[in-house]
Amino acid sequence: MGDMPRIWNETIEAHRDAVREATINATAALVAQHGLTGVTMSQIAKDTGIGRATLYKYFPDVESILVAWHARQVDDHLRELLRVRDRTAGAAERLEAVLTAYAQAIFHRRAHDNDIAGMLHRGEHVAASHQHLREFIRELIAEAAAAGAVREDAPAEELTVYCLHALAAATSLPDQAAIHRLVQTTLTGIRTGIRK
Amino acid sequence: MGDMPRIWNETIEAHRDAVREATINATAALVAQHGLTGVTMSQIAKDTGIGRATLYKYFPDVESILVAWHARQVDDHLRELLRVRDRTAGAAERLEAVLTAYAQAIFHRRAHDNDIAGMLHRGEHVAASHQHLREFIRELIAEAAAAGAVREDAPAEELTVYCLHALAAATSLPDQAAIHRLVQTTLTGIRTGIRK
Repeated sequence: MGDMPRIWNETIEAHRDAVREATINATAALVAQHGLTGVTMSQIAKDTGIGRATLYKYFPDVESILVAWHARQVDDHLRELLRVRDRTAGAAERLEAVLTAYAQAIFHRRAHDNDIAGMLHRGEHVAASHQHLREFIRELIAEAAAAGAVREDAPAEELTVYCLHALAAATSLPDQAAIHRLVQTTLTGIRTGIRK
Repeated sequence: MGDMPRIWNETIEAHRDAVREATINATAALVAQHGLTGVTMSQIAKDTGIGRATLYKYFPDVESILVAWHARQVDDHLRELLRVRDRTAGAAERLEAVLTAYAQAIFHRRAHDNDIAGMLHRGEHVAASHQHLREFIRELIAEAAAAGAVREDAPAEELTVYCLHALAAATSLPDQAAIHRLVQTTLTGIRTGIRK
């Protein structure tokens, strides 16, 4: 379609994005209302007003919509962490602020989000988003190590895996004070000058 | 059946245990060979030589056998940790030895064990076994705290959740040296006198 005017291509692209967004939003609403198993393609078509045939051109099944939804959530989450990073000065402070925001996000995640994540985590589609998150945290840890605030006797990659796993404990904690203690405990594990 | 002789009841009980064991073992072997989705009740009946009708009296479906298998693994795992505890002197040393054994067990866990765990973790059947593990680690942490080796400014329950999550990072680590560093990093988070 090389002779299509660019404006027309952009219009089509915007339309496709809108259809995807509407589909994902309707699916999210249906999951919130009926749970993961109570969502069908027919119901999604009905709620969005998108014809079933059209819907199937975008997504072959409910799971593929949930995958797109989860990817969008992980992207939103990562963007929020980037914002936190960009407004915080100092390598050590940036790391602490971002890890705190990460623990908060895990703490506030809704139960059905966890169900979806549990269902999808073995899929490769999710692996890429998580790789971005890990890479992002790894850079912050490497910067804090270069600034002398974090240990350099273990690879930043290893400390990243430790931090992300330790902070996942936020799902089981009762309140903000416990989240704060968890972040401090986790950071204590990787800070310099505090090892025996 | 109050008039059954005790020896007869014991014989029946031993027989039932043997049937359960054989079923679980055959299922584990089939999973190792064909993966989680390649296991059927018919195949299990065939491999064990137990009639299908009898098999269904013990387990209604493949998932219930996997649940029993996973429970047995968690119990074996817990017994091993108890042995490690019992042969180690000193509260701080006991905690370190047990957490090391726990990280090792996670590191050596086979990929299909993780699949099964992922599939089952939302079930209540598994929650009880994990509650035992958590309670066991919580006691070790409380003892180490009473001995002055672990912080007392956070509840032992919270530090337990932190340790178990942090050590789960062992699944992503490449070798024994990394596992050792992970255990030390995790312990650094909860030891006394090393917080700023």
